[in-house]
Amino acid sequence: MSKFEILSKDGNARRGILSTLHGDINTPAFMPVGTAATVKGVFTDDILKTGSEIILGNTYHLMLRPTSEIIKKLGGLHKFMNWNKPILTDSGGYQVFSLSELRKLTDNGVEFRSHIDGKKIFMSPEDSIQIQINLNSDIVMVLDECTPYPSTYDTAKKSMLLSMQWAKRCKEYFGENDNSLFGIVQGSTYEDLRSDSAKRLIDIDFDGYAVGGLAVGETQEEMFRVLDFTTPVLPKNKPHYLMGVGKPEDILGAVERGIDMFDCVLPTRSGRTGQGFTSLGPINVRNAKYKLSNDPIDPFSQNPICMNYSLGYIHHLFNAKEMLGGMLLSLHNIYFYQEMMQNIRKAIERQELKSFIKNFRERYNTN
Amino acid sequence: MSKFEILSKDGNARRGILSTLHGDINTPAFMPVGTAATVKGVFTDDILKTGSEIILGNTYHLMLRPTSEIIKKLGGLHKFMNWNKPILTDSGGYQVFSLSELRKLTDNGVEFRSHIDGKKIFMSPEDSIQIQINLNSDIVMVLDECTPYPSTYDTAKKSMLLSMQWAKRCKEYFGENDNSLFGIVQGSTYEDLRSDSAKRLIDIDFDGYAVGGLAVGETQEEMFRVLDFTTPVLPKNKPHYLMGVGKPEDILGAVERGIDMFDCVLPTRSGRTGQGFTSLGPINVRNAKYKLSNDPIDPFSQNPICMNYSLGYIHHLFNAKEMLGGMLLSLHNIYFYQEMMQNIRKAIERQELKSFIKNFRERYNTN
Repeated sequence: MSKFEILSKDGNARRGILSTLHGDINTPAFMPVGTAATVKGVFTDDILKTGSEIILGNTYHLMLRPTSEIIKKLGGLHKFMNWNKPILTDSGGYQVFSLSELRKLTDNGVEFRSHIDGKKIFMSPEDSIQIQINLNSDIVMVLDECTPYPSTYDTAKKSMLLSMQWAKRCKEYFGENDNSLFGIVQGSTYEDLRSDSAKRLIDIDFDGYAVGGLAVGETQEEMFRVLDFTTPVLPKNKPHYLMGVGKPEDILGAVERGIDMFDCVLPTRSGRTGQGFTSLGPINVRNAKYKLSNDPIDPFSQNPICMNYSLGYIHHLFNAKEMLGGMLLSLHNIYFYQEMMQNIRKAIERQELKSFIKNFRERYNTN
Repeated sequence: MSKFEILSKDGNARRGILSTLHGDINTPAFMPVGTAATVKGVFTDDILKTGSEIILGNTYHLMLRPTSEIIKKLGGLHKFMNWNKPILTDSGGYQVFSLSELRKLTDNGVEFRSHIDGKKIFMSPEDSIQIQINLNSDIVMVLDECTPYPSTYDTAKKSMLLSMQWAKRCKEYFGENDNSLFGIVQGSTYEDLRSDSAKRLIDIDFDGYAVGGLAVGETQEEMFRVLDFTTPVLPKNKPHYLMGVGKPEDILGAVERGIDMFDCVLPTRSGRTGQGFTSLGPINVRNAKYKLSNDPIDPFSQNPICMNYSLGYIHHLFNAKEMLGGMLLSLHNIYFYQEMMQNIRKAIERQELKSFIKNFRERYNTN
């Protein structure tokens, strides 16, 4: 069971430490996504160097390939992928809905076809937990239905109630366990549904509370509006996790609204396609204007990629379709995210979050 | 100008140190190939850790993209790719013949079309040297024609004589220079042509002597036969470089025959396609038998890849088409090659090369 300690506050923002069996996580924290037991294109040694203290693994991908049973036989996910720090795994639900075919949802679980080989698979809430136990995940997520956006009130309510039933079954199956189990608040954009969902989860009692059903197509304004009425009803002494978020400016706004944990594929996915995050805003390194540039990717960063490589070189690597381009830019982007998180934590400690965010935003919108 | 010192000998094999402005190279040495200003899929920091002391850059690729002028403007090839150790560049000739279209060879040079955009390009011996000077290569190679295999005596002679003319022009153009210039012996499989070629190069006087026109389709036996009569006619006090070689057993046999330097794409190309080098012979990590293997790639290696990752994990990465698979296996393969080179050097120092090679071969043919 994880322990969560809040060290300081600044408005609704919190600076804390989440302790797990595999180590401590300073919050607000960003988790790089290690989909198929690998953060795409990045060595685990290098992830460590970026200051990342926890990564996320995708249950859906791992259950299909290589399977959680094989990972268990090979010593669990930490040993398998050579990452000895904390791991959070999602429940698989989100990818079932976004990647697989022929989904059939019943009270008892979800039936789907693998996007890899078309094999028919059934997953109950208990199955999802068992898979995450096989992986030896430090933070296990309950299986939920990610309510589509937008949804009518009735659809959102029905979906939320099903997720709450499943949450209860997940907790029962998880039982006493050295690792942690997080519940997920659903309820789409409806304040009373979010509030009802949170209450039901608190009754069940989880080690942490995630906000699900966001970052699914709504505007940033809408997402912040939902957080404005959702985080206040979450237990103050437990970590709050906003799933699948997001862009740097999304993270800043969510931290202001009391969120402690984030995950997103953006740093690595962008890194592979040529988008680099910089203090002056995102840039496309494929742009011909960088051909002769001896500047670093981010003029304000001291990270090892910026210290050792020019934009001209990174541009060349993408132009020549060299693997190293995606490797360097993905790693740079994780550094950028983790530097931002470190600065966010410092700003909360110093009660300077508002001015930090104002300055960050001004500079970030230069490009 | 490089300095070459021979520390000890064992039969025809030599243990030496080649000194350049960017550092010393212990020989016999293996050079990983950094085609387009990147050893494919490998960070330069990691190349260093494998014990590599020099890498090879491909003039043909770099002259087309990003161009040697751009690399010069960005500080030269070392700074551009963040590799501060020695670099050898080939002349571009080999790739002109193997990759480009519509080649037209004249006494004055070679005209070809870029394989990237079809642009018509002319390269003279002087152009090749100027490009390599722009790159600030520590070891510059003369432009030669890589004589096709097999060739009739007359074709081989004509081709060799053209290469010798070009070698002379290269030396004249290179002039006095802090970096080094190597000549390339041609003459196909004909002893008197090889001998004549070596003599002509010695008259011109180079800092090192390469054996070209091998590793182009001939058997290992044929290659060794050519080396048997070629290396004895090379200057004993200068480094001997066998271009484009090769498999571990090719390297062992060539070291026995007096070769000091090697380059080959095999460790990285194999690494990207799933072939791993091991003390027991090469393996295909995609093989289903490795699915549940908790063994390292090479049971006899202590390199960081073998210490931290199982075959089961590497198999999974290739199966899931994850970049990290090629990254880990390429790096492992370079470690394997450099461990072998280190052992070769030790064996020569101890006058134990024969027994080392015997033991290596016996074990290597286990799989």
